[in-house]
Amino acid sequence: MVVDPRLSINQATIKYADLATALRVTQDAGVQAIGVWREPVHEVGLDVAARMLTDSGLRFTTHCRSGFFTMPEGPARRASIDDNRVAIEEAATLAAAGAPGSTAVLVLVAGGLVDGSRDLIGARERVREAIGELVPDAAAAGVQLAIEPLHPMYASDRCVVSTLGQALDIAADFDAATVGVTVDTFHIWWDRDVLASIARAGAEGRIATYQVCDWKTPLAADVLLSRHYPGDGVIDFASLTRAVEATGYDRDIEVEIFKEEIWATEPLEAVRRTAAGFAAAVSPHLLESRS
Amino acid sequence: MVVDPRLSINQATIKYADLATALRVTQDAGVQAIGVWREPVHEVGLDVAARMLTDSGLRFTTHCRSGFFTMPEGPARRASIDDNRVAIEEAATLAAAGAPGSTAVLVLVAGGLVDGSRDLIGARERVREAIGELVPDAAAAGVQLAIEPLHPMYASDRCVVSTLGQALDIAADFDAATVGVTVDTFHIWWDRDVLASIARAGAEGRIATYQVCDWKTPLAADVLLSRHYPGDGVIDFASLTRAVEATGYDRDIEVEIFKEEIWATEPLEAVRRTAAGFAAAVSPHLLESRS
Repeated sequence: MVVDPRLSINQATIKYADLATALRVTQDAGVQAIGVWREPVHEVGLDVAARMLTDSGLRFTTHCRSGFFTMPEGPARRASIDDNRVAIEEAATLAAAGAPGSTAVLVLVAGGLVDGSRDLIGARERVREAIGELVPDAAAAGVQLAIEPLHPMYASDRCVVSTLGQALDIAADFDAATVGVTVDTFHIWWDRDVLASIARAGAEGRIATYQVCDWKTPLAADVLLSRHYPGDGVIDFASLTRAVEATGYDRDIEVEIFKEEIWATEPLEAVRRTAAGFAAAVSPHLLESRS
Repeated sequence: MVVDPRLSINQATIKYADLATALRVTQDAGVQAIGVWREPVHEVGLDVAARMLTDSGLRFTTHCRSGFFTMPEGPARRASIDDNRVAIEEAATLAAAGAPGSTAVLVLVAGGLVDGSRDLIGARERVREAIGELVPDAAAAGVQLAIEPLHPMYASDRCVVSTLGQALDIAADFDAATVGVTVDTFHIWWDRDVLASIARAGAEGRIATYQVCDWKTPLAADVLLSRHYPGDGVIDFASLTRAVEATGYDRDIEVEIFKEEIWATEPLEAVRRTAAGFAAAVSPHLLESRS
């Protein structure tokens, strides 16, 4: 099987693999890049994780994930900001440890409404303020923060930023090298403005990472776990991928799938199936390749 | 308990009640208006249903629901258009049979992607075309079609119109007396543009019906059944209701809840709880009352 040279496996796709396993199966499948989650990095420690990444020869594409700063001022907010600063340092270290072509990107998920609150507008403003606090750290570390809009079904409990347009409006207050956006097909495919928003994101230099997975109904009982291999659902990867490519985006492209059935698959097999889905559904729409 | 005079019980809230029961418990609870579903009307026949409605003394607020016309030209599309014409006649008949203040409104749900299709843009265009076909019939019958945007989590399998702005853009091709929109809090509360879109809908004279119910997570395993009594979730009924009222909307306000636990409640009790939730969460934000 030909593996697309721009494919990156987001570690969440093989959630139950530890970092060593994730790196090994990604290599073994012939994939050249990986997006990493914080928890498996913490399990081995950052320095060890960085060395393992270097030894793997893989490119590092994103560090997932941080954010969760919709709460009002107080100890919980301070703890979140501090933890985000740690995540920025982690992203910088891992990107430096990855193969040439790695990107120092930290994915940010805004967080939901705090308990008892109905104030979406206020929560969104606190997201903007938190990013403003983190920008100097990210700039100093050479890390691009990637605000990720999540599907509106997560607006109350996970992410008050629901569209790419919203994410871009928050990012607009900051330098594009430091604050970008995550373009994840699963979250934004339904948006009437999605192609225009992708074009805008590209024109503003803010596409930090392009992530692909598919949407299919019925949704899983836990709607967090409703993602599918590219091509198994209804998302039009042709129009979305071409729109991203048309902006000049030339970074790796992650597949990030949360799904019990895929997590129950042997990790190397899951990576191979991911690569096959990507090759069939996404690769034909890429303008250029690293190969 | 004081029952708000503008409250209307959408029959879906007491789904397992037949039409006779639904009318009776709505009256018994002191509610003055009802929104009706097609299936229970068909069970007794339109003429009988109209007589029952007249005898109840209730106002009729909406006929639910029709639409489902995203398919390409062919027998299935013709059958859908024909069925929508029947629904228009039903809405006109029932509105005439309801008490003074009844509104001849037919709620339209666009439909999802047809099997195997990924063409959201084409599906949306076919919605516009179908409405164009129905407008002469609706105008002749004095019925206002109410395009209902559904939450983006239903975009693939139920409704390709996901925001109030989209619904208004489709409606814009037609006369406002004949084509309006449904403003349902459950579907649009998350939208950053929701208040502006409500203002626009009002300015264009297109708010055919305002419907309220609440959003709370975790969502039910079947996401269609995730609605809650007003006040039990996170929706800010203050800002949404004030925005609707500020447009001059003075029609009844429906509560439409799909939820197994509520359906399992004795219908009169469910209507009373609905009235209590409405009185607490919505009534304080109404500018005017019919009483």
